[in-house]
Amino acid sequence: MPTLLILSRNAAEYRRHVEAARLPGLEILPPDHFSEAEIVFGEPNLICAALPQLTALQWAQSTWAGVEPLLNPDLRRDYQLTNARGVFGGLMSEYVFGYLLLHERKMLPRLAAQLRRTWDASPTGTLRGKTLGLLGVGSIGAELARTAKFFGMTVRGFTRLSETCPQVDQYFHGPDLLRFAAGLDYLVSVLPNTTATRQLVGANLLAALPASALFINVGRGSAVDESALIHALETEALAGAVLDVFAEEPLPVEHPFWQTKNLLLTFHTSAPSFPLEISKIFIENYARYVAGSALWYCVDFERGY
Amino acid sequence: MPTLLILSRNAAEYRRHVEAARLPGLEILPPDHFSEAEIVFGEPNLICAALPQLTALQWAQSTWAGVEPLLNPDLRRDYQLTNARGVFGGLMSEYVFGYLLLHERKMLPRLAAQLRRTWDASPTGTLRGKTLGLLGVGSIGAELARTAKFFGMTVRGFTRLSETCPQVDQYFHGPDLLRFAAGLDYLVSVLPNTTATRQLVGANLLAALPASALFINVGRGSAVDESALIHALETEALAGAVLDVFAEEPLPVEHPFWQTKNLLLTFHTSAPSFPLEISKIFIENYARYVAGSALWYCVDFERGY
Repeated sequence: MPTLLILSRNAAEYRRHVEAARLPGLEILPPDHFSEAEIVFGEPNLICAALPQLTALQWAQSTWAGVEPLLNPDLRRDYQLTNARGVFGGLMSEYVFGYLLLHERKMLPRLAAQLRRTWDASPTGTLRGKTLGLLGVGSIGAELARTAKFFGMTVRGFTRLSETCPQVDQYFHGPDLLRFAAGLDYLVSVLPNTTATRQLVGANLLAALPASALFINVGRGSAVDESALIHALETEALAGAVLDVFAEEPLPVEHPFWQTKNLLLTFHTSAPSFPLEISKIFIENYARYVAGSALWYCVDFERGY
Repeated sequence: MPTLLILSRNAAEYRRHVEAARLPGLEILPPDHFSEAEIVFGEPNLICAALPQLTALQWAQSTWAGVEPLLNPDLRRDYQLTNARGVFGGLMSEYVFGYLLLHERKMLPRLAAQLRRTWDASPTGTLRGKTLGLLGVGSIGAELARTAKFFGMTVRGFTRLSETCPQVDQYFHGPDLLRFAAGLDYLVSVLPNTTATRQLVGANLLAALPASALFINVGRGSAVDESALIHALETEALAGAVLDVFAEEPLPVEHPFWQTKNLLLTFHTSAPSFPLEISKIFIENYARYVAGSALWYCVDFERGY
């Protein structure tokens, strides 16, 4: 009989959703029964901490998209690791297009005008006709591309190899990074943390963007050269940036980002993991696990996603 | 040979777009040749001021959606009046959904946290699953409904009679106004200024909304009882409002709206008339005019839109 250990800050809520599905043959273990667990479902940092005690582990289902804590090459890889996908695209779209609209429709300058009691009817911009460049086009990038098309935009995608999203108008790879960036109105990174993506958003890429461009990072902080970004913003070589992820989180209180010009910060909140949604992934994957089928959303430990 | 007078703050730009279309048989008059003009293309307030001198007028094409200045019952109605439609829906969608996302994704509280150097990872809301109520479902309301569906929302429509938009899940009319309002997450007015819409958003309607609701007005200011709205916001009977239009514009500097709690103001800028887009409407309608076909977007002087 498969045994499940839930390792999450929201363990009670996950347990309730999993129990409600009445999964055939599944025994949900009490907390701390590490050595009996064949399956673990939870946050990668908690799974990582418990890994030495999880001696019977066959399969770990992450509640997050990012599984960096488990990718350390010094850790065991003798189990199947699956992550959460397909549920974050809609939330990420709300975040990214919300901030694109905040920028285009001049919401903060309008608020400043209100505080000055000034009728500021100067024109605002529009998303229609603009060009969005996506760094990374997995399931989240594909949803961003679909939303961009809804708003009448052109979409470029920069990927390692894949060219599978029909809403991307033009794909770029490897050496074409600066050609990809030239002329973009908006650059959005959804890149995971891998050796290939580290500091990809650096001085060269930022210099290739128009000075009117806006950069948004909802992927991982490691993809950005933070000093190069600060320099681009402070010298107005870039019109603005919105960051949800950082090299170090929580962002240290002395970090210059808190006061960098034309930079808006959020706090790794662009796409929260709602337990109900994430539980559905586990429940569907469990059916595949007991049937001996290939699991969905398997992580390649070497590739890193 | 049809003669055209352009009456607009952007007359030079409109003239350039119309000339570029090389419309057969059209003579564009110099400014101030009022009495020779068979056709006028421009802003309703400028057309209204020139109306006594426009003795040869057969057709007036407005560059705006709203044509209130020409609806005064004391004015002549011996010409065809057409307005601009079909071009504002996309811009209005950007405005409305931009402000819905500003609200749901707590963009202003996040900015306040940044200014305090505080990592505020408290959860934000989402549009998905929310219910939007549209006061008025013409071409703009239909585009808002389409965008709401894209974001996974439920849509209610309140109209005089029409039930033509397939993206509206449920229609309400006349006496069902308060049933329409009950349980809405967002109420958006795109109502024109008519005798039937005046002060429709009053104390009763506002009291029927949940206290968590957000109200957005991109129609006309006359649809709102401004005192009732201020009272609802100040007593937190309503979570917030965003207004682009007002009973008096520009908003008087002493108006309480400038400092009303949880109220954001913009300045009749939700859907600017871009001359290139509006010129296309005139150019297409001109072909119908010379062919003797029914013009598009005819305004009914009695109904008011």
